[in-house]
Amino acid sequence: MKTKVAPWIFTASCPSILGTVDVVTRYMAEAGNYIDEIHSFDDRESGRFFIRIEFLPQQENFSEQAFAEAFAERAAEFNMEWALTAPDHKPKVAIMVSKYDHCLNDLLYRFRTGQLNIEVTVIISNHPDLEDLAKWHGIPYYHLPISHETKLEQEAKVRELVEQYETELVVLARYMQVLSPSMCEYLDGRAINIHHSLLPGFKGARPYHQAWEKGVKMVGATAHYVNNDLDEGPIISQGIQTVNHAHYPEDLIAKGQDIERVTLFHAVKCHVEKRVFLNDKRTVVLGG
Amino acid sequence: MKTKVAPWIFTASCPSILGTVDVVTRYMAEAGNYIDEIHSFDDRESGRFFIRIEFLPQQENFSEQAFAEAFAERAAEFNMEWALTAPDHKPKVAIMVSKYDHCLNDLLYRFRTGQLNIEVTVIISNHPDLEDLAKWHGIPYYHLPISHETKLEQEAKVRELVEQYETELVVLARYMQVLSPSMCEYLDGRAINIHHSLLPGFKGARPYHQAWEKGVKMVGATAHYVNNDLDEGPIISQGIQTVNHAHYPEDLIAKGQDIERVTLFHAVKCHVEKRVFLNDKRTVVLGG
Amino acid sequence: MKTKVAPWIFTASCPSILGTVDVVTRYMAEAGNYIDEIHSFDDRESGRFFIRIEFLPQQENFSEQAFAEAFAERAAEFNMEWALTAPDHKPKVAIMVSKYDHCLNDLLYRFRTGQLNIEVTVIISNHPDLEDLAKWHGIPYYHLPISHETKLEQEAKVRELVEQYETELVVLARYMQVLSPSMCEYLDGRAINIHHSLLPGFKGARPYHQAWEKGVKMVGATAHYVNNDLDEGPIISQGIQTVNHAHYPEDLIAKGQDIERVTLFHAVKCHVEKRVFLNDKRTVVLGG
Amino acid sequence: MKTKVAPWIFTASCPSILGTVDVVTRYMAEAGNYIDEIHSFDDRESGRFFIRIEFLPQQENFSEQAFAEAFAERAAEFNMEWALTAPDHKPKVAIMVSKYDHCLNDLLYRFRTGQLNIEVTVIISNHPDLEDLAKWHGIPYYHLPISHETKLEQEAKVRELVEQYETELVVLARYMQVLSPSMCEYLDGRAINIHHSLLPGFKGARPYHQAWEKGVKMVGATAHYVNNDLDEGPIISQGIQTVNHAHYPEDLIAKGQDIERVTLFHAVKCHVEKRVFLNDKRTVVLGG
Repeated sequence: MKTKVAPWIFTASCPSILGTVDVVTRYMAEAGNYIDEIHSFDDRESGRFFIRIEFLPQQENFSEQAFAEAFAERAAEFNMEWALTAPDHKPKVAIMVSKYDHCLNDLLYRFRTGQLNIEVTVIISNHPDLEDLAKWHGIPYYHLPISHETKLEQEAKVRELVEQYETELVVLARYMQVLSPSMCEYLDGRAINIHHSLLPGFKGARPYHQAWEKGVKMVGATAHYVNNDLDEGPIISQGIQTVNHAHYPEDLIAKGQDIERVTLFHAVKCHVEKRVFLNDKRTVVLGG
Repeated sequence: MKTKVAPWIFTASCPSILGTVDVVTRYMAEAGNYIDEIHSFDDRESGRFFIRIEFLPQQENFSEQAFAEAFAERAAEFNMEWALTAPDHKPKVAIMVSKYDHCLNDLLYRFRTGQLNIEVTVIISNHPDLEDLAKWHGIPYYHLPISHETKLEQEAKVRELVEQYETELVVLARYMQVLSPSMCEYLDGRAINIHHSLLPGFKGARPYHQAWEKGVKMVGATAHYVNNDLDEGPIISQGIQTVNHAHYPEDLIAKGQDIERVTLFHAVKCHVEKRVFLNDKRTVVLGG
Repeated sequence: MKTKVAPWIFTASCPSILGTVDVVTRYMAEAGNYIDEIHSFDDRESGRFFIRIEFLPQQENFSEQAFAEAFAERAAEFNMEWALTAPDHKPKVAIMVSKYDHCLNDLLYRFRTGQLNIEVTVIISNHPDLEDLAKWHGIPYYHLPISHETKLEQEAKVRELVEQYETELVVLARYMQVLSPSMCEYLDGRAINIHHSLLPGFKGARPYHQAWEKGVKMVGATAHYVNNDLDEGPIISQGIQTVNHAHYPEDLIAKGQDIERVTLFHAVKCHVEKRVFLNDKRTVVLGG
Repeated sequence: MKTKVAPWIFTASCPSILGTVDVVTRYMAEAGNYIDEIHSFDDRESGRFFIRIEFLPQQENFSEQAFAEAFAERAAEFNMEWALTAPDHKPKVAIMVSKYDHCLNDLLYRFRTGQLNIEVTVIISNHPDLEDLAKWHGIPYYHLPISHETKLEQEAKVRELVEQYETELVVLARYMQVLSPSMCEYLDGRAINIHHSLLPGFKGARPYHQAWEKGVKMVGATAHYVNNDLDEGPIISQGIQTVNHAHYPEDLIAKGQDIERVTLFHAVKCHVEKRVFLNDKRTVVLGG
């Protein structure tokens, strides 16, 4: 079988008007970029257009800069926000955790084996427990314990680490602290959180206990972007697990771990592959 | 292959104490009743025991009355509430609908083909639309239009019909009317409703529109017993359907129909097979 | 909310070379056709390109013929096979059944309620059982009993009916007869069959009995195009159902009905929406 | 909430005759053993009865030996094979792997965090690659490379290790070697293998490539007991993953990993919890 050549990824969004697809695909053809896959979506409510293209440059001297110079003017006519992602780009990711390690273990496994095309550069926790796991993967681990008094101070340190490690994406992999508004603001749009319920159901603390009280027959997990509205950021992916009367809250917690980690992985993968677009309070996920 | 002989069903619940299983199974053995399948559950929170047994009487002269006479004293020692259901028992079911017919169509199909071991004796609606469907199945159809003024009066008529048709179970198959408190009281524990969301998420009106607003990636359905707390009755079964950004509310409504009808069917089937036990605000579903 | 305007659908496939997307999207822009959604796929094994576009003509005088005249020359340069489907096009569908009616009942329900944008023009069966169901929907029903001797003769009559009713698609909705090679040839590419297993597992007769023998924990269903290789036609969709040790073959048959009808519906819907492309022995399903 | 007390587990099977449940539950009541959960199944084809009970001894001096002495005679009357499993029993498990580590990583994670109540005592591989992973978990790792000539010799060494580490269960966690008939014989009934297809579909080598060739829309995984019939041992659990035309064999391999590891975990968990009973070539899984 033929082996896959990793493609460049072009993503863009702009107001919906005639010609939005053409301005992109015509340039691709003229520039000798072979389109391997294309997905687009027009939201008739928000009046916004979204497109994602995987392409293979046919010319030796393809460069991001040349693409930008040639395409910028055309894009401007459509008020198009766009981006190119190189095949060898590995976004630097910071992971924040507390004591639960199922999501961390899963992300590190997929990072280590190449299932996630990322570079995990730093792990930050308010507990010391998971340092060994980080060590074994050769990733720096920072233990920043948090009390009511030290919260803002420690968040400032988190920010420093995020900067220092040139972080592109922060993943809250069951980080069991409520972020301050300023921290939410800081992470807006570039942090993904996993919440252990099918949001907007069971917001807030102890969702599995809430679920048990209600006698639900399914528990879920939601991966979403962090924004300034707690547990209300735009949803990227959701997963579900069947349960029954014989499951006590501790069973829901155990059973939920599998769906949490798969849901978080799926969201991070879609984000890294540039499939996720913000569309007001919702997301568009192209070909996810 | 050997053909299945339909079993008798024995169900019981009582406080959890030593000997609850033995009192039942010993009697079964002594009375010559062959146990084909047995499920039990002890809820350590509510301190309550639940059991469901399928059995095949080995003696020609088995009778419900003889069973009751012989077993009653033993059951009383354990404060056991119990019931026998004969293999040929077909509960009489009244179905209430409005205009949507996907749940009705599904229930009637399964009734007609024997997948549901019930007798649909009457269909009641606040709209005339589905009369033809009822007619084709040879089931009486009552059109009781409801306005704000006539609500209580019409509910009284519903009650009369429920009585007249010796109804054992009422199924609200997308009946789009909020029941009055007295009607809820009347139907408490013997009516099943389908709500088109994964309760307790998106309670109340237009759940698919609510779901779209939130940008969820899954929509669900919940079948629950009617009680006096709107959309809060004990949950019997839930189902889920994956959706994405390209689905507008009308698409969610369409896609949700499949999961609604399957979820409602599953709940009615479990109820009819005597698998569902009330356990405070939750349900125990044995072998469902 | 804004209401949906039904789009025109453009579909095409051709060998994969530079410019395949551009030739289409450039024409769309020049002709004033607003692209609402676009999916493409390049198969690097077969070297073939597939595209599906939903578009809204912006000009009053849009016509299929004008589109064809203007686009044909451009398409020819790429050896492109293409088709336009009008928003109001309802393909004429013939359904073939035997005695099981779960798939027929489901398709008719979705036809009747508009979930499937088709016109069911004729129902053909080798048994008389389902005539009433057809009648209630006002659809002509032909009973063509088949014996070993009459098979070819009756198949000829089926062909006549297919022609007479100007059939675009034949759906074998649990039609329990093995088609003759010439009939397979005749239906090649324009008939969809539902097989009650996850093909290629359990080909041939009594797949649920085969599944039970093997003690499987899941049973499935497969909708595929009919071709000249029995149970080996290109797969369009598959579905699955969890089962366990307590399910005898007759239970598998009952449980499988739900997944059969959903799987068949999904395949017919994708076909009718022009999402399915033949790609040698496999299918490409764009945005399904 | 009340915390869970780990129960003793009683399992048994015998020919189906009247009184099989009673002989067990009567003894439990008389001996003061509180039954927390009970599942039984009678296979009307094989004429065999299976039962699994979780119970909490109410007497201080409960001992396995005393149970055995008191119960043995009653059991003998029914030709009952039975076993007791103590709450603190952790079966010693040997894991065999090759190069793929997704299943190993998952099993070790669940072992380390207590999700699997086992003791992984040894890891055996025909490749050196996964030694680091074993080391980090503090588990001895034996590298036994296998060539055509050395196969039987190395299998003898595997047997020695299995004995030396007092192994109760062997898990073939993507061990990519065909076992010799004598090795299969040796492991019969006490080894679980994961095969990367929904058996009996795609037996043998490279199932994902086979699946791609057929254009399937779902790929699966099967965990089964090893017996002397390659890929035909009794199935314990199966899982499924949706795929589409855009997935090449290497994508199926990647996507399949999640379902493989979950399916294998589920089978090992059921086995360890004594839920799985052999029933000729099939399994009964009680309350799994």
